[in-house]
Amino acid sequence: MSELTDLSELAKRRGFFFASNEAYGGTAGFYTFGPEGAALKRNVEDVWRDRFVRELGHMELEAPTVMPEAVFEASGHLDTFDDMILECGDCGATHRADHLVEDATDVDDAEAFAPERVADLVADHDVACPSCGVPLADRPVEAFNLMFGTNIGPGSSSPGYLRPETAQGIFVEFPRLKEYARNQLPFGVAQIGRAYRNEISPRRALVRVREFTQAELEHFIDPEYDDPPLERVDDVELPLYSAAAQQDDGDLEHHTVAEALEAGVVESEWVAYYLGEALAFYEAIGVDMDRFRYRQHLPGELSHYAADCWDAETEVGGNWVEVTGFAYRSDYDLRKHGKHSEEEFTVFRQYDEPKTVERATVDPDMSYLGPTFGGAAGDVVDALEALARRDRSAFDGDAVTVEVDDESYTLPVEKTGFAVEEQTESGEHITPHVVEPSFGIDRLVYSVLAHRHGTDEVDGEERSFLALPTGVAPTTVAVVPLMTKDGLDERAREVAASLRAAGFEVNYDDTGNIGRRYRRQDEVGTPYCVTVDYDTLEDDTVTVRERDSTDQTRVAVDDLADAVDRLVSGAALSEL
Amino acid sequence: MSELTDLSELAKRRGFFFASNEAYGGTAGFYTFGPEGAALKRNVEDVWRDRFVRELGHMELEAPTVMPEAVFEASGHLDTFDDMILECGDCGATHRADHLVEDATDVDDAEAFAPERVADLVADHDVACPSCGVPLADRPVEAFNLMFGTNIGPGSSSPGYLRPETAQGIFVEFPRLKEYARNQLPFGVAQIGRAYRNEISPRRALVRVREFTQAELEHFIDPEYDDPPLERVDDVELPLYSAAAQQDDGDLEHHTVAEALEAGVVESEWVAYYLGEALAFYEAIGVDMDRFRYRQHLPGELSHYAADCWDAETEVGGNWVEVTGFAYRSDYDLRKHGKHSEEEFTVFRQYDEPKTVERATVDPDMSYLGPTFGGAAGDVVDALEALARRDRSAFDGDAVTVEVDDESYTLPVEKTGFAVEEQTESGEHITPHVVEPSFGIDRLVYSVLAHRHGTDEVDGEERSFLALPTGVAPTTVAVVPLMTKDGLDERAREVAASLRAAGFEVNYDDTGNIGRRYRRQDEVGTPYCVTVDYDTLEDDTVTVRERDSTDQTRVAVDDLADAVDRLVSGAALSEL
Repeated sequence: MSELTDLSELAKRRGFFFASNEAYGGTAGFYTFGPEGAALKRNVEDVWRDRFVRELGHMELEAPTVMPEAVFEASGHLDTFDDMILECGDCGATHRADHLVEDATDVDDAEAFAPERVADLVADHDVACPSCGVPLADRPVEAFNLMFGTNIGPGSSSPGYLRPETAQGIFVEFPRLKEYARNQLPFGVAQIGRAYRNEISPRRALVRVREFTQAELEHFIDPEYDDPPLERVDDVELPLYSAAAQQDDGDLEHHTVAEALEAGVVESEWVAYYLGEALAFYEAIGVDMDRFRYRQHLPGELSHYAADCWDAETEVGGNWVEVTGFAYRSDYDLRKHGKHSEEEFTVFRQYDEPKTVERATVDPDMSYLGPTFGGAAGDVVDALEALARRDRSAFDGDAVTVEVDDESYTLPVEKTGFAVEEQTESGEHITPHVVEPSFGIDRLVYSVLAHRHGTDEVDGEERSFLALPTGVAPTTVAVVPLMTKDGLDERAREVAASLRAAGFEVNYDDTGNIGRRYRRQDEVGTPYCVTVDYDTLEDDTVTVRERDSTDQTRVAVDDLADAVDRLVSGAALSEL
Repeated sequence: MSELTDLSELAKRRGFFFASNEAYGGTAGFYTFGPEGAALKRNVEDVWRDRFVRELGHMELEAPTVMPEAVFEASGHLDTFDDMILECGDCGATHRADHLVEDATDVDDAEAFAPERVADLVADHDVACPSCGVPLADRPVEAFNLMFGTNIGPGSSSPGYLRPETAQGIFVEFPRLKEYARNQLPFGVAQIGRAYRNEISPRRALVRVREFTQAELEHFIDPEYDDPPLERVDDVELPLYSAAAQQDDGDLEHHTVAEALEAGVVESEWVAYYLGEALAFYEAIGVDMDRFRYRQHLPGELSHYAADCWDAETEVGGNWVEVTGFAYRSDYDLRKHGKHSEEEFTVFRQYDEPKTVERATVDPDMSYLGPTFGGAAGDVVDALEALARRDRSAFDGDAVTVEVDDESYTLPVEKTGFAVEEQTESGEHITPHVVEPSFGIDRLVYSVLAHRHGTDEVDGEERSFLALPTGVAPTTVAVVPLMTKDGLDERAREVAASLRAAGFEVNYDDTGNIGRRYRRQDEVGTPYCVTVDYDTLEDDTVTVRERDSTDQTRVAVDDLADAVDRLVSGAALSEL
């Protein structure tokens, strides 16, 4: 646990993240990103957006975080987004019942059991309350919905919920989004935003929290005709931990995307495509690829809707943390919303050439049916239409019989207006399938901090540093005066202002001795420090110091913005 | 209302914003930003961040949107963040009671009245339910808290609320934030994020919604020693609509920041400073400065904590919309949190030189006080300490008397251990004051869309366009093939990819005829269109078309990224 403790201490001391509302005793499961953390998080989001929205040409939207109940009735969250809880009758503490059972028995997926069975196991194993030690046998195990509920407007007639995933804000607007995509598949819609889960036991800092940021991409495709641009990722090498390997105590295997598909390790071409696209993203934000893997869901783990699922996982403090889910969600979501709402969640698929099809139709003679069948006439017409579609041979004889509410109605075929017509159809309405890479931004930030934090020795002293890639570092360049006298600080402020004007993220720092300031910048991951000293007043040059090597070089103030620009673009200090 | 209707129609059709969840009948007060709107909104936020965080060297944080009840007990929102509601006894519709009174009488600030008085006015004026027409006399007027409530964790023992302003997430973390600022005033902390108000009657599209985005800056200052850098804004000309002008039917007056301060039109230097800083921001995002003003709060409008308040307002559809509040909040917020929580919401102000002060102290002889005063001895000690601080002359005689709970206690001065000592103090703890510019991002986006939308005539046809500044336009350059055949579309996709690789926001569009595609790009505010035609296949040049003038010029594909870069930086089409 040492890595996690160090990380939380560093995060709090340097302003990356800390438990919220500590002045009021804290609120479990809620974290605030301080100045360094908010900048790092935003940079990670920007890299994501650049790759998954801008470069791939997808759309992005921003939906509200509060959504009405009807949405979650359709999505299934209202019924099934539950954890099992058990409240101690003595001290009132609430626990996750499945976790209690897992801790007390050999069972390792009690979540899959029915509440009654979990309650029985609690009783059978004499499980006691972890808070007060009183036995929990005979306490009821209840379902607790993990959505935060609220009321929209006065009264309680319009319940609403904080969205448990950003995805629903995209799905529910599909009928409009397809218009913006000019009714052409495939198209992708992304959203970066807050999501909420009212966890019973928040823990492990940013890993299991109650409010978090997701970056989700819903790629809507025609499952029959749309193929992913695999040529972009064919040769990308994936660290794959397949379901088979997990079940057989096997190891991580490295396959290129093309190999993985050919060998059938990854089943869905679309999932494989996104595993490939995402790899460069993890590298760009600073995930240590030696502490990273793609893990396939085991058969029992798969969501009911998902055909093939892989998680991206990072290792932090000895545990694997899920940072992304890659799911082929099929037409599950759009079909659900299509069924529950008034709108069409389909796209018109145009045939390459119009098709001519035969359609059997009826056009009943109501002057006969009305008097003959009375109030049942309308239902008889419906039954005739259905029968014509289903079995046109039923109209081959002179009379035809249909059933309505267990009664039979027979009439002459000539009174049904039965006919078979040729119709020309230019296409059909299909429900698109969805491929979803869903990223947990907080967990990624957490992983990057863990993977990039290190210590070494500089000038005989231990140094703590954060080797963040320049593209995500909160500050690109810190400007520090050697002393805060003789005009050095004023000159340094000018230098800082000129770098800001050139568009860089700049930190001006004149507190404490120079060594301490370097340490501070090293520990928040600032790749470059610029020092203004007495020589600066003489010859208008400054020292540029590199975080990782601690090497230094002199640069003229006039060339400084250009020099930093070249460093950011990958130039070495020695090339300046 | 025509401007508003046009705007909503355009916003929906082109994907700027639309009412959320329409597939389920819609949810009043919630809007989704579509692809164009989300990009525009993000660009507005980026311009804000660039000016109010990066350039001014402030910090930014990201706090949770769900906060515990204790925070809002301290801030006052739990008690006072109310609207008055009145529910119809017949149809059950809920109305804002003060609005009903204002509509039925000459009163124009019924919000300031007590609920009983509002109920009386409803009865006196025979106000009927706007929904069903039934009289509302004798229906109770009740306070309705505008915060969305929820429960944190299982059960209802930990109530939480969706924050009604982002500011509280900053204030509550002040004890930690001051450490990141190395305990030095002044420093500013910004936050961009969602805030929530459970409005009774959401209306006017993005103007009065239940979930919105704020960009708030809390600038913590030492009120005695810190001055704003007025030299940055001295000459900025402000369109000011002062309280005096509002009361005397006066007009908007233009004053520079320096003049406004000298004439006393704006009272607070800090508020004047931010009015100056903000002006360039509004211009940069495309607010029409002829439909913009700074309006001072009238005396009755001022919040109890605010010494001087100005709003930035934009005119949209004939109404003035508040888009920013500039408030001098004094030490109100930090003092409240300091009182309600366990932590210190102060900063240590170091004196220039240590001060020697005399302190009167007591050190009572408990072997005398105990037996003499019994259970009251402790309170007598406290009273003696307070008296020594307050009035040391009381100890001049032989005996001294203190009052505790209406009883007098007299004792010899020699038993009090009274002494006057010299102490050296290096500084004192002060509660910083707060200057707060608070921006409503949704309303700004709404204003920019309204102000930049126009129509003109091109080639004899009416054209609808959005003259967005390039810095906030969702798309910088659209690439359109003349035809989708003969390889033109493939070549155009290559051109689009190369512009994306160069970092531009690019839209590829090949649906419909070329004129229709230009119209579409004009209407979403894309400043430049690049057309790939048959000449492109011959000589590798493309047409670059400018939105505002509709002028066109030819550019070699190899020079295209550079040309767009120069256009974005302000070059004219004729200079390419």
